[in-house]
Amino acid sequence: MEKFSVKAFGTESPTASLKQMQIDRREATEKDVEIEILYCGVCHSDLHSARNDWGGSQYPVVPGHEIVGRVTKVGSAVKKFKVGDYAAVGCLVDSCRTCSNCKQDLEQYCIPGFTLTYNSPDKHLKGQMTYGGYSEKVVVDEHFVLKVPEGIDLAAAAPLLCAGITTWSPLKHWKVGPESRIAVIGLGGLGHMAIKLAKGLGAHVSLFSRSKSKEQDAYKLGVDDFIISEDQKRMEATAGKFDLIIDTVPYAHDLNPYVATLATNGTLVLVGYLGPLDPVVHSVPMIMGRKAVAGSVIGGIAETQEMLDFCGKHNIVSDIELIKIQDINEAYERMLKSDVRYRFVIDMASLKN
Amino acid sequence: MEKFSVKAFGTESPTASLKQMQIDRREATEKDVEIEILYCGVCHSDLHSARNDWGGSQYPVVPGHEIVGRVTKVGSAVKKFKVGDYAAVGCLVDSCRTCSNCKQDLEQYCIPGFTLTYNSPDKHLKGQMTYGGYSEKVVVDEHFVLKVPEGIDLAAAAPLLCAGITTWSPLKHWKVGPESRIAVIGLGGLGHMAIKLAKGLGAHVSLFSRSKSKEQDAYKLGVDDFIISEDQKRMEATAGKFDLIIDTVPYAHDLNPYVATLATNGTLVLVGYLGPLDPVVHSVPMIMGRKAVAGSVIGGIAETQEMLDFCGKHNIVSDIELIKIQDINEAYERMLKSDVRYRFVIDMASLKN
Repeated sequence: MEKFSVKAFGTESPTASLKQMQIDRREATEKDVEIEILYCGVCHSDLHSARNDWGGSQYPVVPGHEIVGRVTKVGSAVKKFKVGDYAAVGCLVDSCRTCSNCKQDLEQYCIPGFTLTYNSPDKHLKGQMTYGGYSEKVVVDEHFVLKVPEGIDLAAAAPLLCAGITTWSPLKHWKVGPESRIAVIGLGGLGHMAIKLAKGLGAHVSLFSRSKSKEQDAYKLGVDDFIISEDQKRMEATAGKFDLIIDTVPYAHDLNPYVATLATNGTLVLVGYLGPLDPVVHSVPMIMGRKAVAGSVIGGIAETQEMLDFCGKHNIVSDIELIKIQDINEAYERMLKSDVRYRFVIDMASLKN
Repeated sequence: MEKFSVKAFGTESPTASLKQMQIDRREATEKDVEIEILYCGVCHSDLHSARNDWGGSQYPVVPGHEIVGRVTKVGSAVKKFKVGDYAAVGCLVDSCRTCSNCKQDLEQYCIPGFTLTYNSPDKHLKGQMTYGGYSEKVVVDEHFVLKVPEGIDLAAAAPLLCAGITTWSPLKHWKVGPESRIAVIGLGGLGHMAIKLAKGLGAHVSLFSRSKSKEQDAYKLGVDDFIISEDQKRMEATAGKFDLIIDTVPYAHDLNPYVATLATNGTLVLVGYLGPLDPVVHSVPMIMGRKAVAGSVIGGIAETQEMLDFCGKHNIVSDIELIKIQDINEAYERMLKSDVRYRFVIDMASLKN
């Protein structure tokens, strides 16, 4: 397979800083779209992969899966895109396309396994892993390339490709609409998108936060109610209220106080935490209210397009801080301290410098 | 309120055997149905309440919430029943009737709280608790009295009122039908009803059991597949298979091997275990397959009638061992050793002796 070299930012080991490097991209095949990357959002997963926090990282790691750019080349069989179009790529760049889940537009649950935008075995360039959006260009099968709604702020749209779809998918799966009462746990990259999207869908939205300092921001983002999760009286008064809770907290935490705030038939859906549910969840409130604890990961391609179109129509984007690629290591440190409101996005023009 | 005295079997303390006693019933008010009890199923909850295993028992405790009998008196406003009709009573004898759940026929999730058939504060006879079906007669508001389908085996129908509805409700809520692949964990009173009802609904049904000794019975009950839950290879080969798992196990157990056997969007629903989910459940398989762990308790009154009618039509009843009331203490001991296939039912004629 023919390939070409592009500039990128990545890391050679779990402990090294990210630095400029050269990586190979395949030449666009007939179904591929070649995209010049204009903006790339910075997700917590980028940091976890770069530092091998979850194991399985193979180096070099070039992170980035919130990609917005411009089409620079299309294969002969490409139908959806032409050179010059804006285009976006999220967390997935391939899947089997044939399993029962893929056939239902659930590529995020591809049974043999999907190909992540970075740090997945590359099906085309054997022996190398996929490289993400911290680079000049990316080449992706058009099925996994999204159309960017006209007029949307391109930089602020980038985080929709992961933080957006991760919260949109459960909102849609659990049928959130104007009659719904939902809550979001945690105000970060995922949480602030969950609020905006749920408000866009017309729901009544509450935010659970440990920190009073988030209150003003939460109301600015549109929440109807702000609840300090450590205020026991307030939590008790909130018993039985929510049809759906989107739990964006990325570390182990006690779910029991939140399960208590679910209404009959309500679901708490985990989107941020990978690990054991410690401390243990008690079954009694689940049984006595037909409540559920569930999980959800990103979303399918058709669903991602639906979300982007919805955001275009409702003028929903992420709140971002635009940075240069050279500032990525500092951004990671700030991200670890939650010192970002609410998403860093890299201006990829900086990679040309 | 006028009352009358009936013979019953109950216990005066957590450590005492059940023995014959006299209890008061209210005279039927205008909306009440007075029922002569012909058969009463023996549920694990009866034993737990008699022995105060869950706390909260107030003595005397007269258990029994799988009641089938004949109407002996009706109040002036009663519409559904006349003297001589067969009638049934399950776990609930009252609820607020006005909350949003009650209005949706979800009396089992009544928000201010329902009145259980036994050991709940009696709304009519102040200062006493409700007494269950181990007695000559019971008086219940007609809303909470079920019609018994014509021609059904009355004794074998009794366990439908708890074991039946407890498994029917999740089967219906999660929309089990001929396309569904479901599994049942545990072959006891609840498990054998789950199998029969799910097969009645046309589903493909597997049974998870720890014991090879249950295999022959399971196939006789109609399962399509029998899986020893400690056979790790078999469990691994079953990954991703089930749309719904009805977990009837009444003690703490590891849910993780079962969650792995859920298909994308699948739910494991707990109906038998009240307590902490120990060992901890891991979120990764839930997130990577949009799987859920949920709970469910009995069912609403309309749903119970639907289940009884379905059982009448499909000739579904419980496998029972008929006993005399005088043998109830021995039956409890045998139940603790799972030495019953699959439900004891008391022939209440024995109480007249």
